Parts: sequence; C-alpha cells; structure tokens
Amino acid sequence: MEEPIQDIAHLGHIELLTPNPDDSLWYFIELLGMEQVHWERQSAYLRGYGDYATTTLKLTESDAAGVGHIAWRAASPQALERRVAAIEQTGLGLGWSNGDFGHGRSYRFKDPDGHNMEIYYEEEKYAAPEHLRSTLKNLPMKYPAHGACVRRTDHLAVLCQDVARNRQFAESTLGLKLREQVVYDDGASEIGSWMSSNAVHHELAYVVDVEGQSGRLHHMSFWVDERSDVMRAADVFMENSIFIEAGPSKHNNSQAFYLYSYEPGGNRIEIYNSGFYIHAPDFEPVVWDETSRGTGVYWGGALPASFLNYATPVVAETASADDTAEILPFDPH
Amino acid sequence: MEEPIQDIAHLGHIELLTPNPDDSLWYFIELLGMEQVHWERQSAYLRGYGDYATTTLKLTESDAAGVGHIAWRAASPQALERRVAAIEQTGLGLGWSNGDFGHGRSYRFKDPDGHNMEIYYEEEKYAAPEHLRSTLKNLPMKYPAHGACVRRTDHLAVLCQDVARNRQFAESTLGLKLREQVVYDDGASEIGSWMSSNAVHHELAYVVDVEGQSGRLHHMSFWVDERSDVMRAADVFMENSIFIEAGPSKHNNSQAFYLYSYEPGGNRIEIYNSGFYIHAPDFEPVVWDETSRGTGVYWGGALPASFLNYATPVVAETASADDTAEILPFDPH
Amino acid sequence: MEEPIQDIAHLGHIELLTPNPDDSLWYFIELLGMEQVHWERQSAYLRGYGDYATTTLKLTESDAAGVGHIAWRAASPQALERRVAAIEQTGLGLGWSNGDFGHGRSYRFKDPDGHNMEIYYEEEKYAAPEHLRSTLKNLPMKYPAHGACVRRTDHLAVLCQDVARNRQFAESTLGLKLREQVVYDDGASEIGSWMSSNAVHHELAYVVDVEGQSGRLHHMSFWVDERSDVMRAADVFMENSIFIEAGPSKHNNSQAFYLYSYEPGGNRIEIYNSGFYIHAPDFEPVVWDETSRGTGVYWGGALPASFLNYATPVVAETASADDTAEILPFDPH
Amino acid sequence: MEEPIQDIAHLGHIELLTPNPDDSLWYFIELLGMEQVHWERQSAYLRGYGDYATTTLKLTESDAAGVGHIAWRAASPQALERRVAAIEQTGLGLGWSNGDFGHGRSYRFKDPDGHNMEIYYEEEKYAAPEHLRSTLKNLPMKYPAHGACVRRTDHLAVLCQDVARNRQFAESTLGLKLREQVVYDDGASEIGSWMSSNAVHHELAYVVDVEGQSGRLHHMSFWVDERSDVMRAADVFMENSIFIEAGPSKHNNSQAFYLYSYEPGGNRIEIYNSGFYIHAPDFEPVVWDETSRGTGVYWGGALPASFLNYATPVVAETASADDTAEILPFDPH
Repeated sequence: MEEPIQDIAHLGHIELLTPNPDDSLWYFIELLGMEQVHWERQSAYLRGYGDYATTTLKLTESDAAGVGHIAWRAASPQALERRVAAIEQTGLGLGWSNGDFGHGRSYRFKDPDGHNMEIYYEEEKYAAPEHLRSTLKNLPMKYPAHGACVRRTDHLAVLCQDVARNRQFAESTLGLKLREQVVYDDGASEIGSWMSSNAVHHELAYVVDVEGQSGRLHHMSFWVDERSDVMRAADVFMENSIFIEAGPSKHNNSQAFYLYSYEPGGNRIEIYNSGFYIHAPDFEPVVWDETSRGTGVYWGGALPASFLNYATPVVAETASADDTAEILPFDPH
Repeated sequence: MEEPIQDIAHLGHIELLTPNPDDSLWYFIELLGMEQVHWERQSAYLRGYGDYATTTLKLTESDAAGVGHIAWRAASPQALERRVAAIEQTGLGLGWSNGDFGHGRSYRFKDPDGHNMEIYYEEEKYAAPEHLRSTLKNLPMKYPAHGACVRRTDHLAVLCQDVARNRQFAESTLGLKLREQVVYDDGASEIGSWMSSNAVHHELAYVVDVEGQSGRLHHMSFWVDERSDVMRAADVFMENSIFIEAGPSKHNNSQAFYLYSYEPGGNRIEIYNSGFYIHAPDFEPVVWDETSRGTGVYWGGALPASFLNYATPVVAETASADDTAEILPFDPH
Repeated sequence: MEEPIQDIAHLGHIELLTPNPDDSLWYFIELLGMEQVHWERQSAYLRGYGDYATTTLKLTESDAAGVGHIAWRAASPQALERRVAAIEQTGLGLGWSNGDFGHGRSYRFKDPDGHNMEIYYEEEKYAAPEHLRSTLKNLPMKYPAHGACVRRTDHLAVLCQDVARNRQFAESTLGLKLREQVVYDDGASEIGSWMSSNAVHHELAYVVDVEGQSGRLHHMSFWVDERSDVMRAADVFMENSIFIEAGPSKHNNSQAFYLYSYEPGGNRIEIYNSGFYIHAPDFEPVVWDETSRGTGVYWGGALPASFLNYATPVVAETASADDTAEILPFDPH
Repeated sequence: MEEPIQDIAHLGHIELLTPNPDDSLWYFIELLGMEQVHWERQSAYLRGYGDYATTTLKLTESDAAGVGHIAWRAASPQALERRVAAIEQTGLGLGWSNGDFGHGRSYRFKDPDGHNMEIYYEEEKYAAPEHLRSTLKNLPMKYPAHGACVRRTDHLAVLCQDVARNRQFAESTLGLKLREQVVYDDGASEIGSWMSSNAVHHELAYVVDVEGQSGRLHHMSFWVDERSDVMRAADVFMENSIFIEAGPSKHNNSQAFYLYSYEPGGNRIEIYNSGFYIHAPDFEPVVWDETSRGTGVYWGGALPASFLNYATPVVAETASADDTAEILPFDPH
C-alpha cells in the first residue's frame, strides 16, 4: 500500500473577477460580513473573521466575472518544491511569481482545463488591528456579528470539459484525494468529482461544463458557524435583492446545508455549513450514479436548470434565473 | 369601534381519518414522537409533549383519509353558550354530543363547506403517569427527545369551494380574526384566508379547492421548538421513506419555517416553527395579490403542483407527487 | 365562573433611564441591533425590527439608571376607560397626559410600590422609510442581521417591597393573569409573581426587593428569533466588553433560554427566546417552593448573588459582579 | 524546517470501565442514542451513527470507573511500524495483541503516566444491517434521531502527574501536535496541553492531576451535529436524572460548546459541538496564562470545583457535586 502524503496543506485563497466591483464589494463586506484588509490597483483583499491568513479572497475588477486564480498552500517548503517538480513534469507550469499581498513567492500553473492556479508556502498570518482584536486568544479577529457573518473560505467548484483528466491531474500532481464522485452511463461518464487535501470534505470540485467551455467557475463557498447562519444569509439576501438560486437545503453528496446566490458581479456564491470531515486514511470515495444521485438534494427544493449551465464567465446562450422550474439530473455543488 | 371578544380560547383538537391506521400510528408515535394516551374502538388518542390537554389528535380508521372533525375550546361556559346560539342562527348546527375521551359535552356543527366542527368548554388536563412526568413543573409531560419531537398541535388548513363565505362564517359565528389573505383579480377572488382566535398567527386557514370538492383537508400542522427540529424531521422522514412534498423552507405569509409530508394514511402533515405572534388589538390583515404573493415561498424550494390540488380525501384525478416540478401560483399553507 | 376579560392588549413600551446615554445608545443600536426612530430633548426612541409600534423603548438621560415608566396598551378605547376607572378607585391615579412620540394620550398612575405606569390606546404603527422597508409584507421593518438583532420588546421584571400587594393590584386593576409564582415558607412568603395580559408567558414580574427599596427595575427583556441568537448576543457582548451576569442558560420557570447583561447605563438587559405560550383559559398558575424552585435554573450556570440584589437605581451597598460565585436561592427572571 | 508527518490518522476508540454496566449501557444507548453492535464477556461495543468504524466505544464492567485503554489508528501499515519502533525506544511498549472486535492486531503501550494505549492499522468499517441502513450513501448508519443523538467519538482528556512529560511523549512518540496550552507561573507550570494528530482541534488532552494520582480519566467527549443538540442533551439529562456538572456553555480554549455529565458508572462524559479545525501547517499553539485563561469559560456558567478534582477512578477524598459553587482557576476540557 502506498503511504498517504499531504504536500498541500489546504486551499489558500481565491481570486474572483467582477465587472461590477463596487457592488461586489458591498456584497462581500455588508452582506457576508467580510473585512477588507487591503486595496491595490484593481483588487480588494478580503477575509472572513476566522481565517488565520491575512486574506483569503482577492476581488479584482475585470471585464467579465469568473475565477482569476486558485491558490494552494503547501505543507512545507520541501512540499512546495516536490509539488512544483511534479507540476513541471506535466508541462502545465508557468513559472514563479514574486508573491502578492499576504503571501510569498508562488509557482503558477494551469490545470488541464485552463484554470489558473498557484502554489506557495509563505503565508502572512493575520494580525488584527486593535479595534478588530478578539477577546478570544484563539480567534484571529473580532466576531463581527454582521450579515451572513462568514467565518472562512471553504471550497470552490469549477467546470471543465473533461472531469476525469482534471481529477487525475489534481490527484497525481497536487495529491488531492477523491471524496465523492458522480458517474453516469455505467461508469463511462464522470460527471463530477469532489476532492480535498485534508480532512475537509472537499476543497475543489470538478464538474463537467455542459456548455463545452473551459476555465469557468461554478461557485465559491464560505463556511458559517451554524445552519441558522445559512438561513440568516437567506433573509439577508432577500432583504437586499440578491438572487437566491437554490437552498437553503441539504445536499446528499457531502450532507451539507447550502444556499446559492449570485453576487452582483455574477459569480455564484455558496453559504455553507455542516457536512462531515474525513479522517479515515483508507476512505473509499462515495460514487453516485443516475439513480442514487437523483437531483443532488437530500431534502429541500430541487435545483433549477440554471444550476447546471450557469457559470462564470457567462456564455451568451446560458440559462438564466428564468429556468428555475426545471429539475436537474445532477448538481455540481 | 366594536370591542374585541374572544369566545374561542383556541383550536382544541383534530380528528384525522386514515385508511392505514397501523402505519399512521407508527408515523405519529415513532416519527413525530407523540404519545398515545388512549385507544377506543377505531380511534387512537394522541398528544404532543407540551399539550396541556390530555389529547389533541384523534386518529380514526376510515375508508378514506381526511379530517373527521375540528374541535374548538370555548373560553368559558358562557362563551360556549354564546357561540352555540350564534351557530344555531346560521342553521348549520347539529346538536349536542356527550363528549369524548378527554373533553366534556360539545356542540356539533358544520361550516358552510361541510367540514365537521364542534365546540366545547370542559377539557381534561393531562396528568402524566409517573414514568412520563417531567422534571419541569410547568411542562405537562417528560420531553421525549424522539423523532421530530413535536411539542403541540398548532393549526390546520382546509379547502373549500367559497373562501369568502367560510371565512365570514368563522369571523361572525366563531369570532376568529383574519390575519392574512390571498386575493387575486383585483380583489375579486379570495383564494385563501388565515385566521385565529388568539395571538397564534393562524389556527384555521380556508383555501379554495381547485378541484371543486367540499370538506377536504389541506394539512394539519404541529409545532416544534426550533427550526433545527424541522430539519431533524426532514432527516427522519428521509430515513423512513416518508414522502416530503415541500420544505424545509420559509413562507412569506406567516414567516414560518415549514416541512410538508404525507403521513402513511395520505394526510398532509406540516412540521412548523417560528413565524410571529399577533398582539395588536387593531391588527390589519395582510393582503397579498398575484404579484406580492408569488409562490408563497420567501426562500427555499418552490411548492410543487401537488401542493395546490392534493388534499384528503383524494379525488380520482388529483395530481400526485409526480407533479413536483411545476411551480404554483399560490400556496395554501 | 367569572368570564375572562382582556382589557390590556399587551405591554406597550418601556422608558429606561441612563446616566450614560451615549454608551447606552451604542449598546442598543450597535450591539442589540435596534433602530433609532426619533430623538427629542433627553430621550432617544428605539424599536426592534419586528415591533409593529413605532417605538417600544424610550431611552432617557438621567442621574441614575432605572425604569422611567412602563406603558400598557389597552385593547380598545372602551377598555381604556374601564381600566382608568378601576385605577382611579385605587387612589393611585395621576391623571391624563397628552401622549408622547408614537402614542396618543395616556393615563398615568403608580403601582403600589411606586413604579410609574401609564395606559393608552392610540398607537402609531410603524411606517418604515424606503431604505428600511422589508421585502416581507408582514414584517414592519427590514431584517437588520446586525448584532443580537432583537426582534421586539418582550417583558420586564421589577422589584418591590410587597409582591402580593403589587401582584393583586396588577390582577384586579389591570386584569393581568398570574402565570407562575415562587412562594416560600409554606406559602407565607410570596417571593415573585409572573403575569401577562395575553398568551405571552409573562409581560410583568414582581419580585421582592431584598434591599427593601421601592420602584426599582430588575431587568428588561428583548425577544430574539432563536436560541442561536441568544448565543450570538453572548459572543457580541464578550467581544465588546459588556458584562454578562448570567447565561446563556435555561430557566425552569418559563422554560426560556436567557442571557443577562448590564447595558452601559447600568440597567440589566435580558436577551430571551423560547419558553411557552399560554392559551388555556383556565390555566392554573405554577407555584414553586424552596425545593422545586432550586436556583431558578433548569440547566446552565447558577445565578450569581448579584442577580438577587443588583437592581437599578443601584443602592450604595449593593452587591456587584464580584459576587458572582455565590449561588442564589431563587431568581427573579 | 522539519517536515510535518502524520503517522496517527486519528483517535480510534476508547474503552471505558464501569462498575454499573447496566445503567451505563442505558445511558449510552437510550440517552446518547448510540448503537450497540456487539457483546462479548464483560464488554459492550458501541458506535455513534456517523462513525465509519464498526465500534468506537468499548464499555467494560469493572470494579471502578475509568479509562480501560485509548486506541490510535495509524495512517498506514508503514506508519504503524514506525510508531511501534518509536514507542519501543521509550521502554513503554507492552507488545502486540491479536486485536479485538472491530480491529486487527495492535501494539499495546503505556504513556508515562500509566494510561493504557494501543495503536493499530486494520479497522473494520461498519456495514449496517438492513434496518439500520441510511438513505444517504455517505452516512454509515441510519440517523437515529434519538436522545442526544451523538454522531461520533471526538476526543478525551486524561489527568497526569507531569503534563510536560506526557505531552512530550505524545509529540515525539505519537507525532501529535500541540494546539493549546495552559501554563502558569510565568511558564514554569504546564497545567494542561491539548493535542491532535489531524485537523481536529484536540483528540487528547493532558491535564495535571491535582490529587497526584496516575492513570485517571477526566472526560470522554462525543460530537453532536449542532449546538441545539447539546442543549437537547441537557434536557434529556435533566429529564432522566443524570447529573450535569457544567454547561451548556462555551469554552475559551477551543471555542467549543460543551455539556459535562456523569454517566451512571461515574465517568465524566462531554457532549460537544462547534469550535474550530486547524489546517495551518505552521499553526502556533495558543498559550494561556492565569490571566488570559480565567475560568476556562468564554460565556456561560463557571466550572465547579469538582471539575478540577473529580476524575475516574474516584479517589476517596475527591470533591463531589456538592462543590459546584466554587469557581475554578482553570479547566481541563
């Protein structure tokens, strides 16, 4: 038996692109309760109150919505070197950057579908200014009790043309472990794969892009402390005219309680809680087929058609919120 | 200004009919966590752990599902006499009964749509046997912590051919107060009316029967302590193959968090929490039209077509759970 | 049997006195999430997002903390006249006022212990400005999702020298109904009595003042939507250096989940949820003695000594937060 | 920088000793909602509904309460060999067993304080019988919705004479990582250390035994899905005369929401939720001193004196529940 290795410590941060930066910023700060820690050129740097890193979300003005890049923190300097060597062998490496606000130099690369990624080790831990210091020594920042009050970045899901190929890249090159999978046609069609580097249920999901596009984002997800916070987020979104696409409801895959909204820039954002952690070293991925998968919902409302084909950047003919009545065969949460 | 009177203290108990008594009993006892306090001929008498009355649900074997009768507790012996006099003037009175297990003599009548009702004053308060006695002096029965763990009967909704006529009967004859209302066609079509005798948001709702039937039940509703209990009920129903028709979700009307299931006898049962109480003596009913009403859902999944036309007893051509994809123009919750 | 009457619709509003108005205002607005609707001379007028009245808390600058006055809304103009006639017979009437911001003329009086009260009928319903309008037609104000996010004023507890005398006054003159009671010494010592005019468990409690003072406030209580909100309030108080005296814990009396803090002006403020409503017209008050009462806590931390003798206005020798280690024989929640 | 290794996958299972096996079994099955999967000689084998292993709690009849042994699952066969080699070097190894119900051969050893431990790799995954199969493919067992409904074993805390020595053993020999620590006297006195092998906040805590005993158990802890479940457990314990020593309250260390009870055999059992997971590879242990530690409670009731000196097996002169009024200088949660 091969020994497990964990060269990736965790999903580090994500860059979201928005064509509507002011409103997007309002959404993340006023509605989600995030804190802005820095502003530089076209980008705002944000954090959840429980994130140990200085920043976990970089919000960048752009012509179109989507994911700018996905950053992984290596478990050690040596692990970083090992992963970079593995990436370089795939021919998908782009080279080293000098780092960015909050973290040191990073190695940039693309996954097979073309999503920009980077890996780094040096992370700047958050040091709260006096007025944001918590009375809890083990909490990086004062609890804001504001809006959805997201605690930390949890995971993201991206679309791709070939799930198997991207999943294998993440497994062999990054060392992510497969957690759950939707496979149709008696195993012939890999529809979606959920993976993580650690005990978190999933940090990265690859789901097939039914529009045949490349490099698109399905959603980014934030963790809140309780299911009550997910429901409070729904109230907050309703009171502030934010489109709720699905939820609050419970997934079968992951068992999580979810809420999907579109932030004003167009990116789908999930508010997320519960589910389960995975500690078994010999965990066997859970595989769902057409029958067992159903609509991807354990209980709560069915997922609308837009959940299947809406992604950022938006493609001209993409389904919109008008398609909410149709039930989906699967969900890429 | 006319002075408010409250001759009806509260909704007393409900008799449900079931063609599948063993399975229905299993549902109410094992899944909802109710206690059976009595058995007599074709009827089982049940209670929630927080009900002060000995029994609030009478479950009776019958050829078809539906509501057997709806019982109101008067606020005093004098109030009982006043209400009986008012009912007799309508010509809908049926006469006095000798009472039933748990309550004294009652005056039986029909509402204009033909639902059987009764009104009584003498109620037997529950005296728990030793093994069911709570350690809380103000709790009638030991907390069961079992299944959905419903605390008490909350309300019911019935269908009828003429909502306005039945609503007026409930107002003028029983003294119920109108709380919320769905009115379409610029006020010409009264689709549904929610009423109560006290601070509870609604104890009785009349909603139009789109099948043109009479005397049918839309749903009966049980109160649980928290929204978490509603979600636990959803888990319990999923694990025990009980059909969940809608929810957990939040209504706009009433603001309540709801879950609709079909008990094995076919009656729609709601698990219910939150919403708001009404204490203003001059509360103005909230009126919703086509636009403001939407689908009746504030957030969470849309209501399926079955929610509109499924009721008990079931009519031959009625929609079934297969219709769950279609969004409804309103909901009679 | 005497017929029940309900001439008092509900507890209307409360005036709190504070020697520290700026900080008190910060506490109610920033930490509790209330909205300020008016400012006049030494008083700020506040509301919870779910209150139907324009204002339910009047915060007035004063030399010492305490309750300014307690206002009851009558159920009708006729009910107002009846209650005024009854009050005048007791010799405790003070005469009519011209009303205040938010309500019309009121009849002012004192309870036997000297607390200022008033009764009125004309209440101005809240009309939210555009930016505070809710997307829910039945919610008076946009959900703020801020701090403890209190929904509405719930009840208050005052101290007095003679509980029985004040309780009888409230019963016979105001028509409040006794709900729960703590009686020691084989019935000889009435320690506390909890009363309400409607289905709310209690709107007013009288508890003996162990310091032998008159006219003092024990606490004012705000309702939040869930027990999670009570716990969020505890986090908010800890992060903002607000003294938490007791809780979050569960009372035996009322079954409610509570949290007691001191607002910066010194008044004890409770954040409150759950418990039970009372609909039985023949509800029998629950009486607790030394044994059954215990410490007044069903589960959670014991109440500190300060809970017994701290009240506003503060008396020179009163216990302070330093006494938190001693367990109390009862609690006047 | 040394690279992180994780040879221990997670805390595997715990054996509790009870002089009162029938009542202990009733506590774990009826009140906590665990499932008994096996019975052999003096031992019952139990599990939470979310445990992937067949059994995580072995309950063994004994003359006195306490912990029988603590079992760690290795991350791989190679990791097992590495850890055994490391243990053997300390001279604390006892040799190989043939395994037990649910797991394969194990290497037995003692920690420096004398607690029995074992390490193994082969774990039998739970295969639910038909009637206990969940409708969720990724849930090992049907959700019971019964009593406290504990999901899985979370952690344990043991007392010892020399915290530093035992902590160093766990770090260097087992590879556990230090998460939080209470150190008094300007760093001279290590009072307690909380450690884990993975992202769980802590799986094992060593706390100083103020009675100077060896090998004692402070508490074993079970994870529930929500804070509401912790509160439901409190209701269940109150209704079934189980002694609640402390909570529901929130710790400062770990940020967790806790409830401590004594099971009928005398062992302290914690019901536990929330807190935070640790993913930073360079996490710096949080160190609390006399001032920052306070009573170990963030909010909620203070911990009683018994929490400091009560442990199993009980020593003759140990404090009992009568000491609940005294506030503790620290808490070994």
